[in-house]
Amino acid sequence: MRIAVVGAGALGLYYGALLQKSGNEVNFLLRSDYEAVSSGGITVYSINGDFHLAEVKGFRTPTEIGPVDLVLVGLKTFANEYFNALISPLVGPDTLILTLQNGLGNEEKLADIFGKDKIFGGVAFLCSYRVKPGVIKHLGEGRVLLGKFAQNNSTRTEKIASCFCRAGIKCLVVSDLKRARWEKLVWNIPFNGLCALMEKPVDAFLKFEPTRRLIHEIMLEVITVANTQSLVEEIPFSLAEKLVTSSSKMGQYKPSMMIDRIQGRPMEIEAIFGIPLQFAEEKRIQMPRVRQIYALLRLIEENTD
Amino acid sequence: MRIAVVGAGALGLYYGALLQKSGNEVNFLLRSDYEAVSSGGITVYSINGDFHLAEVKGFRTPTEIGPVDLVLVGLKTFANEYFNALISPLVGPDTLILTLQNGLGNEEKLADIFGKDKIFGGVAFLCSYRVKPGVIKHLGEGRVLLGKFAQNNSTRTEKIASCFCRAGIKCLVVSDLKRARWEKLVWNIPFNGLCALMEKPVDAFLKFEPTRRLIHEIMLEVITVANTQSLVEEIPFSLAEKLVTSSSKMGQYKPSMMIDRIQGRPMEIEAIFGIPLQFAEEKRIQMPRVRQIYALLRLIEENTD
Repeated sequence: MRIAVVGAGALGLYYGALLQKSGNEVNFLLRSDYEAVSSGGITVYSINGDFHLAEVKGFRTPTEIGPVDLVLVGLKTFANEYFNALISPLVGPDTLILTLQNGLGNEEKLADIFGKDKIFGGVAFLCSYRVKPGVIKHLGEGRVLLGKFAQNNSTRTEKIASCFCRAGIKCLVVSDLKRARWEKLVWNIPFNGLCALMEKPVDAFLKFEPTRRLIHEIMLEVITVANTQSLVEEIPFSLAEKLVTSSSKMGQYKPSMMIDRIQGRPMEIEAIFGIPLQFAEEKRIQMPRVRQIYALLRLIEENTD
Repeated sequence: MRIAVVGAGALGLYYGALLQKSGNEVNFLLRSDYEAVSSGGITVYSINGDFHLAEVKGFRTPTEIGPVDLVLVGLKTFANEYFNALISPLVGPDTLILTLQNGLGNEEKLADIFGKDKIFGGVAFLCSYRVKPGVIKHLGEGRVLLGKFAQNNSTRTEKIASCFCRAGIKCLVVSDLKRARWEKLVWNIPFNGLCALMEKPVDAFLKFEPTRRLIHEIMLEVITVANTQSLVEEIPFSLAEKLVTSSSKMGQYKPSMMIDRIQGRPMEIEAIFGIPLQFAEEKRIQMPRVRQIYALLRLIEENTD
């Protein structure tokens, strides 16, 4: 497949590199990392084995790339206002657009611009970070839950899935993309939120009983709202306990929002907090703990503007 | 009156200085500030007029002071475990003990040791901080709501109150000390908590609508629990709006818990959060926002131990 990767952070570079390694033509749309990646290629230090791609197609504008079979969107969600400018030149009549971004509202925004039939969503469970331009550290996980945004074209979902599988990316097609998104939020809201707020890694909260209990309570708030969103199948409340237990293995993992804060970048507050809170409000459900974290994270951004 | 001030921080030194200035014999029990206060006296920079006391009776041990008419307790609440050692030598048959400390549980602990008839509580509304040993900056307020802990001896409350009034300290005798304590918590819990957590002063939260709303919501949580505590008269929910509005005038005020955190001292987490949360739990009332702040403040202390 001819693929374009838009937003080449840790996630975009990692999946893009695996897709290129397995024989696809991958075009990376780059900004600040253009020089480093074009000249030095991509290096992935991974628990599944390190590898280096010396030849990488890097571009500064989407027009140089032109229409592709698949657009992989890995932009930070606060850059979603640039969807039109960055993606339009990549889209032809048969182009598929897959967003692997965090949180809620991304498929909707893409569908508004490009039509819902073209849009696919992938919920990426990936522990990785960008060491420096072109260099990615992959710490764990990596699977993608893939779903279509509209109620049709399941053969095209399969096409993307098999392309990912050939690249060694665990990829599961899900019938309810919305559920998969909310399920990821059950983890993302407490951990991205609190780790960013307190500038402490995952294990700091799990080793201390009062904050471990808090994480669990926040997860219950998220599951409660998720189950009002007409999911095909409800999310069981037992997921909270399961995630608290499994996260203990992550050690000093720093979620992306924490890294964003430390490095002085904007945080993905709206996609991970603001939009889920809107869905809760529409159903008149309070999320007191989540809303408190949201207000405090926004205060941080307000003061760094 | 012969008075002993135990815990000579901003609060103890400020009230102690005013009481000495108006003719009482005030004995200050000092620790780290002993040298500075004994040799340099006390300087108060106050919105009501600056003053300096050159001669101050400072002591290193309570035994050197011996029994007094009134013990003024201004200790940080995390030092309450030293009540017995620090106060016993100051107590004779007719000694009155007045705690001006923050939060809940102080009168109870004193009553356990010295008998409830001796114990009085004062809720101090004082904006002040210690500039350096022996030097206090008084920014605003200063009034004390005074009440007895047990249901008797109102003449003795009057005795303390008139001593304070003669010293120019606004002092109002209240029939329901518990209510006064909870009323102060309506302010202390959100502002001490959030300012300490975020290391930002009062106005940062009030100038930004989402956190202004959060402050208001936290206040409602506190009032809800307060009104389950058999107060003589309920606290109206409108107090929250009133306090949010009046606090806007405080500007960049740093509550004591924030200063404690910045200066690396323990915070008064149990008196201001832990014990009120216990009272809420006994009445099976959730305080999700307050409990979240409590857990996060404790995490901070946990990691600085």
